Amino acid sequence: MILVDGKRTRRISALDRGLAYGDGIFRTIRAENGMALHWPRHYRKLRADCARIGIDCPEEPVLAADIDEILRRERDCIVKLIVTRGEGGRGYAPPQSGGVSRVAASFPLPALDPARDRLGVAVRWCTTRVGWQPALAGIKHLNRLENVLARREWSGPEFAEGLMLDLEGRVVEGTMSNVFILEQDVLITPLLDWAGVAGLQRDRLLEQAAACSLACQVERITPERLMCASQVYLTNSVLGLWWVSSLEDRRWRASETTVELTRRLRKIDD
Amino acid sequence: MILVDGKRTRRISALDRGLAYGDGIFRTIRAENGMALHWPRHYRKLRADCARIGIDCPEEPVLAADIDEILRRERDCIVKLIVTRGEGGRGYAPPQSGGVSRVAASFPLPALDPARDRLGVAVRWCTTRVGWQPALAGIKHLNRLENVLARREWSGPEFAEGLMLDLEGRVVEGTMSNVFILEQDVLITPLLDWAGVAGLQRDRLLEQAAACSLACQVERITPERLMCASQVYLTNSVLGLWWVSSLEDRRWRASETTVELTRRLRKIDD
Repeated sequence: MILVDGKRTRRISALDRGLAYGDGIFRTIRAENGMALHWPRHYRKLRADCARIGIDCPEEPVLAADIDEILRRERDCIVKLIVTRGEGGRGYAPPQSGGVSRVAASFPLPALDPARDRLGVAVRWCTTRVGWQPALAGIKHLNRLENVLARREWSGPEFAEGLMLDLEGRVVEGTMSNVFILEQDVLITPLLDWAGVAGLQRDRLLEQAAACSLACQVERITPERLMCASQVYLTNSVLGLWWVSSLEDRRWRASETTVELTRRLRKIDD
Repeated sequence: MILVDGKRTRRISALDRGLAYGDGIFRTIRAENGMALHWPRHYRKLRADCARIGIDCPEEPVLAADIDEILRRERDCIVKLIVTRGEGGRGYAPPQSGGVSRVAASFPLPALDPARDRLGVAVRWCTTRVGWQPALAGIKHLNRLENVLARREWSGPEFAEGLMLDLEGRVVEGTMSNVFILEQDVLITPLLDWAGVAGLQRDRLLEQAAACSLACQVERITPERLMCASQVYLTNSVLGLWWVSSLEDRRWRASETTVELTRRLRKIDD
């Protein structure tokens, strides 16, 4: 199902600034049993991202109503929300009136593969680098061409994800996920001040780490350091947590901490 | 008038990858007396940009037919062409089938203000920086959020354009134009290898410079150097060439070279 500004339609204005300039924000939300998981967190992040680029985010009940309408018919699905600066004429200057458009669309829920928890996932390095733009770093905005270019580097199921480096060769993220490394009892994830998307599950994993007696650090990570880590994790709102089992010639096996973090991220709805 | 995939409609699929990811390319074309100015150049650049991000650009006659349909009704207008990777599901991986969508839309032609040629334009510095992404530098793609943020820094008519610096503080471009400086008999424009859009009028001005006995250089330019230049120019396909008359407390007056370059860029349809 697709709702545009709350109405059931598959189409949006060809003059929408989301199309013209990528002038908008999005969220990808996992829904199970008619519930949009972590919705209050999703809305807070959506609102904060809209504020950073000066879009008037719709109020929470408006977006919640769109989601409810979808979940009445499809109780288990992925809901993608897009909020844009609305229709605009030609030219970068936003309309004085401060428009906004919203799209809510459902997609099939990928089955959580229990084998993935047991066997982990194989990942690769991407050659496409993440660019630098501090003004947009951390925001889940619609300018995602570099993620598309990175994801085009492979097809087929042998790799579940590709890891991306920044212009200086530091690890930033996966094409669709945040990255963590475990070094003994310290969980480390890259700083996202110059590039990257700060996902909601990234916050959740940092919060849950304490419950597993892990310290957390947010700092620059080199590929060499990642290869030496005792575990590597990927998170996003669709998959939860994946642990990496192979990258080039390096192999990992899931530790007890990994099993516990996976369980916590999946079970607790906060 | 708006054509989507050649059909008269104002709407496009809400699942188009142009909206989801800015996964596409665009052109802005000036049309006068039923003629799309510099169309062969526009098409070459569109095709080259599509190739850089792996989109199958529609063949020239397909796009020319869209433009013709618009120009049969509106002989003087701006035509904006958008070519995207078409509809996609959720996820960055492009569909195997290699889709493509196209939008052709007309907008009112801004009158060429003769006073602008005589008096020049006032410009300002933007605080929003142009990010670095060599993989996308020079391409007129749909990821234009930083241009939007820069253009939001002012409203009202007192400034015709804002100049943008890169992350190291070098001059890159205007929010909607390319920048040139004149130093004696040398025309200089910024290197666009890490950031910026290489516009079609940029190429044309570099070509026409020889006819005015100017040498050309493409290199990094500091703001201080721009302030000391004997002339500063802005180009794009809608406005042609503007000469800058004021920036902060610096004032310029049009030189004979400026008058000649303006005339050549506007008069010659190549």
